[in-house]
Amino acid sequence: MKAVIIPDSFKGSISSSRICAIIGSAVLSRWPDAEVISVPVADGGEGTVDCFLEACGGRRISVRTRGPLSGTVDSFYGILDDGTAVIEMAASAGLPLVGDSPDPLRATTFGVGELVLHAIRSGCKKIILGLGGSATNDGGCGLACALGAVFKDADGTPFIPAGGTLKDIHTIDVSKVAVSLAGIRITAMCDIENPLYGPRGAAFVYAPQKGADAAMVFQLDCGLQHLAAKIDECLGLDVSVLPGGGAAGGLGAGMAAFCGAPLVRGIETVLDTVGFDALIQGADVVFSGEGRIDSQSLSGKVIDGVSRRTKAAGVPLVALVGDIGEGIEAAYDRGVTAIFSINTLAIPFSEARKRSEKDLSITIDNLLRFAGIWKQ
Amino acid sequence: MKAVIIPDSFKGSISSSRICAIIGSAVLSRWPDAEVISVPVADGGEGTVDCFLEACGGRRISVRTRGPLSGTVDSFYGILDDGTAVIEMAASAGLPLVGDSPDPLRATTFGVGELVLHAIRSGCKKIILGLGGSATNDGGCGLACALGAVFKDADGTPFIPAGGTLKDIHTIDVSKVAVSLAGIRITAMCDIENPLYGPRGAAFVYAPQKGADAAMVFQLDCGLQHLAAKIDECLGLDVSVLPGGGAAGGLGAGMAAFCGAPLVRGIETVLDTVGFDALIQGADVVFSGEGRIDSQSLSGKVIDGVSRRTKAAGVPLVALVGDIGEGIEAAYDRGVTAIFSINTLAIPFSEARKRSEKDLSITIDNLLRFAGIWKQ
Repeated sequence: MKAVIIPDSFKGSISSSRICAIIGSAVLSRWPDAEVISVPVADGGEGTVDCFLEACGGRRISVRTRGPLSGTVDSFYGILDDGTAVIEMAASAGLPLVGDSPDPLRATTFGVGELVLHAIRSGCKKIILGLGGSATNDGGCGLACALGAVFKDADGTPFIPAGGTLKDIHTIDVSKVAVSLAGIRITAMCDIENPLYGPRGAAFVYAPQKGADAAMVFQLDCGLQHLAAKIDECLGLDVSVLPGGGAAGGLGAGMAAFCGAPLVRGIETVLDTVGFDALIQGADVVFSGEGRIDSQSLSGKVIDGVSRRTKAAGVPLVALVGDIGEGIEAAYDRGVTAIFSINTLAIPFSEARKRSEKDLSITIDNLLRFAGIWKQ
Repeated sequence: MKAVIIPDSFKGSISSSRICAIIGSAVLSRWPDAEVISVPVADGGEGTVDCFLEACGGRRISVRTRGPLSGTVDSFYGILDDGTAVIEMAASAGLPLVGDSPDPLRATTFGVGELVLHAIRSGCKKIILGLGGSATNDGGCGLACALGAVFKDADGTPFIPAGGTLKDIHTIDVSKVAVSLAGIRITAMCDIENPLYGPRGAAFVYAPQKGADAAMVFQLDCGLQHLAAKIDECLGLDVSVLPGGGAAGGLGAGMAAFCGAPLVRGIETVLDTVGFDALIQGADVVFSGEGRIDSQSLSGKVIDGVSRRTKAAGVPLVALVGDIGEGIEAAYDRGVTAIFSINTLAIPFSEARKRSEKDLSITIDNLLRFAGIWKQ
């Protein structure tokens, strides 16, 4: 008996790591000889490094870097057993690091750039950077500066642009970034589609939770627009409609423009990094999961990404979800074998979320009991 | 592949017959060669005859009888293939028959007695009488009169007592009932535990839904107390605390006192009548279900009754329920193999009940898909 567990988190209730633990422990308590492989899926936000370390093995590296505002922070990243570095931007520029004094006009991703440099100097040739949970709105300019980029104002004075000073950028030179990243494959990971600026952009959608009032949101959005224009002018790249460009205060667009990094969904990054196709060889069943499944959410989500691989390999895929919405028939065609909701009581989500772990545990336990009927 | 389906109804959402249809059709659409046996469990109320006819085969007999108030009604009962008669009291004395003019002071079970007589004259030696859905509060006096009982008032005048005239009973003579029922085995079926009278009795709990106001409830309760005293005095039987004595306006107590009929739960009656132990020989799985399962509801309910038989026979039992409450571990010990909630969305019951059929269908379909992983 071999089972592979590769769930997304259930947003607002259970982390992917806890889901792996609950399903894994249920499988082992029923079939003690089973081989259980856990791959908690990271989304680029807080916990991304731990997810990868759990799935792939590796070590956690402690680094002191510049913080999002003044001073330094005790930051970290992971080096997986295959030498890949996994960095979450939140470790050096995350919202929890600014405490009660958020300031998206000043907050910088410079410390995140230092983590990247540290990984490069440690010999990592492949870097995964998780975008999410940011306190910043600097379009990745801070990170770029740490890697050698030079931003100058109209007077020709170099400076490190932050949210409030993006409008002052006159020229951008990333030639030294290219030198820093020579021979390095860097990927930015994010699960959101928001563009750099505009009504669905980084400032309007995310800056309020980083402490911006309405006037500040407008100022930040103008700054990001100006940045996009300068990127176009100086680097010849159009990042204005890049999906995910608005991730982590515009770091998504910055990674693409300054570092040439592709923006990739969490699930695809995880599948590639763990070598999923090899992992599921000989597996009897794969368990995946998400907070909700419906026809809208089939594309690009965790279950969808996993199903493409399991279908090709002919391995059954069982999805455990919070809610089952409309249009799930399409999921069967895409390779999902069976779908189960963990809801055990007819109660609203505000109550159900408090007992999600228990509900998941009841559901997987009974599925394995049920499987025992048919398993010889 | 052989599957037996024996669910209770999900109170307030799906009938047991619909549950059988949904599960049965799911099994056959996945495994077209499967043998599927459906046993919808009746609770004694409306639909009881149809449940037994569906489970056992037989024919529906049309009979014109006295109605609950004035005039006659087109009533019916069933004769199963083995000669057992199944009667639901609601067919001749049910609440729908009184329309907008309910009158529990006058309503009678006389017509139900006529159904019993008709079954006896048709040669039935075994009679199952379902108690439930009554418009009456006559303690079964009407039925007893149809079978030959004689109730007299203080002047020695015979009369047919109804709710409002129970207090006038002075003597009871059931000697002719015994003659009518000679050689007949009659069983009364009900799933409630309420006693004949008192705060949990027929009048206080059920008369309001039969049109009684507070004063009338009190009058009806006094009448039932008087009836119990007279049964004790004239027949030497104490029906005052009999569980289920208050079923169908006291017809439960009347069946026990006037006809010597045991009060039996729906599930036990069904299990015996269908020959359940023989039915499950060679079955791969039994599906049962209830609106809710928890430690309180384990005893005496459908799943519990079924699990005793399946456990003894070594056949797996899968329970499909609305809600899964606390303390279900005990159910596994009692022989339930696995339990699944049909809830697919985190919404309150007021909304969930409207989509119960769909939710059941999704759940059983996915369980069978899941079983396909393990079934060789």
